Amino acid sequence: MHIGLIGPGIMGRPMAFNLAKAGHTVHVYARRDAALEPFSNQPGFVIASSPAEVARAADIIITIVSDTPDVEAVLFGPDGVTHGATAGSVVVDMSTISPTATREFANRLAMQGVEMLDAPVSGGEVGAINGTLSIMVGGKPEVFERVRPVFELMGKNIVHVGDAGAGQVAKACNQVVVAVTIEAVAEALTFARSHGVDGAKVRQALLGGFAGSKIMEVHGQRMLDDNFQPGFKTHLHAKDMRIVEAEARSRGVVLPCADLVSGRLEGLIEAGMGELDSSALYRLLN
Amino acid sequence: MHIGLIGPGIMGRPMAFNLAKAGHTVHVYARRDAALEPFSNQPGFVIASSPAEVARAADIIITIVSDTPDVEAVLFGPDGVTHGATAGSVVVDMSTISPTATREFANRLAMQGVEMLDAPVSGGEVGAINGTLSIMVGGKPEVFERVRPVFELMGKNIVHVGDAGAGQVAKACNQVVVAVTIEAVAEALTFARSHGVDGAKVRQALLGGFAGSKIMEVHGQRMLDDNFQPGFKTHLHAKDMRIVEAEARSRGVVLPCADLVSGRLEGLIEAGMGELDSSALYRLLN
Repeated sequence: MHIGLIGPGIMGRPMAFNLAKAGHTVHVYARRDAALEPFSNQPGFVIASSPAEVARAADIIITIVSDTPDVEAVLFGPDGVTHGATAGSVVVDMSTISPTATREFANRLAMQGVEMLDAPVSGGEVGAINGTLSIMVGGKPEVFERVRPVFELMGKNIVHVGDAGAGQVAKACNQVVVAVTIEAVAEALTFARSHGVDGAKVRQALLGGFAGSKIMEVHGQRMLDDNFQPGFKTHLHAKDMRIVEAEARSRGVVLPCADLVSGRLEGLIEAGMGELDSSALYRLLN
Repeated sequence: MHIGLIGPGIMGRPMAFNLAKAGHTVHVYARRDAALEPFSNQPGFVIASSPAEVARAADIIITIVSDTPDVEAVLFGPDGVTHGATAGSVVVDMSTISPTATREFANRLAMQGVEMLDAPVSGGEVGAINGTLSIMVGGKPEVFERVRPVFELMGKNIVHVGDAGAGQVAKACNQVVVAVTIEAVAEALTFARSHGVDGAKVRQALLGGFAGSKIMEVHGQRMLDDNFQPGFKTHLHAKDMRIVEAEARSRGVVLPCADLVSGRLEGLIEAGMGELDSSALYRLLN
């Protein structure tokens, strides 16, 4: 199949390679030429000069870029996907962006007969390389079924959450839980340290019970090692939490812990630690 | 072996039965006669009329009562453990109480030649019944080794965390992580609901990735079912968080999310929901 991939960055690059490895022809586009370098003269890849060109060549067009305005530009800007997509094309946005904007984008594409799924991922660079991402999908069930074999080349836990935007809602929920749980583990290990108690032992004791989590396991260890190489960068996590806050506000919902941790991520950026893994929240306490 | 058990409540009762089942003679004491009812005429049990009487008969004296003052009364009050314990006796406090008070109690007992371990548990009534509790232990390593076979009759994940008080510190960490993670899951599911997205699908999608936790699995389901039968009661969780707050303050440590959730647990009590499982925090958001 001809698959487009717009935004081959840390996540998109290994995802593109997994698609090509499965025998698909992958049409890649990036704003920066450097991001296209790994694909030049590689079998299975065609380098495109615009999102429109990707859309003309591919049946399924994956976008995985930074934020809501980037997705809008790539889809609807000059030389955007809409200038190349035809009725029956499917846009699969795997970026993490606003659920509300996602619904609007899906509606705009639908007027052109173009289908859209929102399919943000969790699992980081390692998950992208190993094809073990969690993929949270919003959109029509029949479109989801059509794209499912492609998702299966990139991820393991693939859930059709609901209609357009539902994938982004699930991802927002994911980012809330991850951020607040990181803060929870950071506060617990800080408490232990203030009592002169070995955090490694505490982590070990807690992993077996109700306090056990992937975050305790992975990010807890990062805190104990004082090693905050990303992982997932603070400034991206802060961006995701800003989306959550804006969306919550617009729905009249108050999320007190999410708000608090969102503010702490901004504090981490102000303190010059935006490039570190977001588990560096531990540093703000110590 | 002769083992004492002071405080056969929801947790202590099944623990006592697991000890007797293994062939030990269990000397039980409770302030309320009703709590002793299940043991009368049961093989393997001796009902005692005071903590001192328990201490005279048993080599290892387990206490599992509600709060710091209860442990102090049982150990040092009139007819308390110290009036019956002899040099070489071991007090094993499995209550959840203040780490600082624990260290003081251990010192007072040591002056009498009585050893003490703090060994609070996690895993709830089900864990106590099945003998699968997590047990977090503070005290001397050689005393821990002596008591380990007894712990193994009650728990699975048994960790010697450190010196006197370290078990209570680990338990405090556990309660922080559990409380804050419950709030994280509650806020995420509230966000999903405000977008009209199926929380069950969100839970399913998130369980596979970094947002996955025991709390997401168990308490997330409780929230989706709107079933807040304990489980672990809000007023007990609030009590544990009060201990954390007091201890953190005394060490000059600030734990912003723990403080926030502690306040929300108090709010739940004020709203008349203190007897519900602490995952009823979800109700405060909805």
